Amino acid sequence: MEHNFIRHSVLPQESDASKRITLSALGFMLLNAAGIDAESKGFGSIALFKDNKCWVVSRMAIEMKRYPTMYEEITIETWVEDFTAATTTRNFRVHDASDEIIGEGSTLWAIIDMNTRRAVNLLSYPEWATFATGETVAMEKPHKVGAADEEVERYRVRYSDIDFNQHTNSMKYVEWMLNTLDISQMQNHIVTRFDINYMREARFGQEVSICRCDDDDTNRFELKDADNKSLCRAELKWN
Amino acid sequence: MEHNFIRHSVLPQESDASKRITLSALGFMLLNAAGIDAESKGFGSIALFKDNKCWVVSRMAIEMKRYPTMYEEITIETWVEDFTAATTTRNFRVHDASDEIIGEGSTLWAIIDMNTRRAVNLLSYPEWATFATGETVAMEKPHKVGAADEEVERYRVRYSDIDFNQHTNSMKYVEWMLNTLDISQMQNHIVTRFDINYMREARFGQEVSICRCDDDDTNRFELKDADNKSLCRAELKWN
Repeated sequence: MEHNFIRHSVLPQESDASKRITLSALGFMLLNAAGIDAESKGFGSIALFKDNKCWVVSRMAIEMKRYPTMYEEITIETWVEDFTAATTTRNFRVHDASDEIIGEGSTLWAIIDMNTRRAVNLLSYPEWATFATGETVAMEKPHKVGAADEEVERYRVRYSDIDFNQHTNSMKYVEWMLNTLDISQMQNHIVTRFDINYMREARFGQEVSICRCDDDDTNRFELKDADNKSLCRAELKWN
Repeated sequence: MEHNFIRHSVLPQESDASKRITLSALGFMLLNAAGIDAESKGFGSIALFKDNKCWVVSRMAIEMKRYPTMYEEITIETWVEDFTAATTTRNFRVHDASDEIIGEGSTLWAIIDMNTRRAVNLLSYPEWATFATGETVAMEKPHKVGAADEEVERYRVRYSDIDFNQHTNSMKYVEWMLNTLDISQMQNHIVTRFDINYMREARFGQEVSICRCDDDDTNRFELKDADNKSLCRAELKWN
């Protein structure tokens, strides 16, 4: 009951030239699994939306031993670890068809009141306490990611980037980042750990500065708006 | 047996700001349904690939009465109408949960020998004849689309555009086209008929010229390479 298992087969449009699932498609799967689990427990976006509130993911980390490939059947296991006043921690395991754990994920979520744009105290929902399993993952929890200052590209937010929330879909940030790297890096290496911190939403037509700072086996990214305010920071560690 | 029914629930990342499924996500669903059906009948890409051959879609047309929305459960019905030496016609119906037909599709496919890059005679597979149902759709078949000459944008092919075939995913063309239009058009209108003709593949790093020609309720698009050769043409008719 506390853990939910969501099966998914990797679609062609979720795979890249190496036939492995893309990082953004994998992130989408975790977010969708989170949505399905939250709905099944009565605290999903649909219920919150009626109350003019919504879930926002503030941090996400993923560690992968290997990436599933096109048409591979995987199962996303997800559960809530804990609630605090400000955030809830939701964890994930990625199982392959032989039930080996090929990856883990951990996310931090907050609830925003869409009228006031302020965070809602999650402990004001005592009925949710029963879903806090206390169970953690083996990986390190999502990090705070440092700054990156060198602009490598500018990107204007397009129709295909905008989702039902009227702002940029959170995984599109990841696509923009990966698009600045050399394609051979994606073909010859995999991201073993991915951290992303979300600060602000990017909207249609907005121009975004993509900054990057490279270091041995790590790329650190920062997306900034026209006022130099940080939209998002991410760190990709490669094998 | 001849018709296959594939259920799918519209995911958040498949929906746009209007919460309706995007045209590219809908196109992906039809292509995936085609793949699932072909595999189940023994003539899918996996089998062909071993023989160094692959299916390519040359034309697709979709007519929609309404677009399903986020989380809506739909069923894609697909079947083969016929085989000729050059192409096979595969049709689709989109059913909603109350089994109303909300749209139809029709596609033309050829098989390419990946060594010679030449088309394979489909009638050289007599065992497939049994799958030709002769059954058509109510909509008009895929059109030949005319030219469009006015360049509205240039686009460089990115990592996130490339799929397992090592070239641009066919539905990415549609995203690039829609991204040149005013977002209010997408929010206030729907595409009632969509035609696309595929001519050439776009590869990583290639610069593509997006040309468009607008006429009352229709946008015609042409994508061209640096030698002014046509990659693809499409026509979108709006309500």
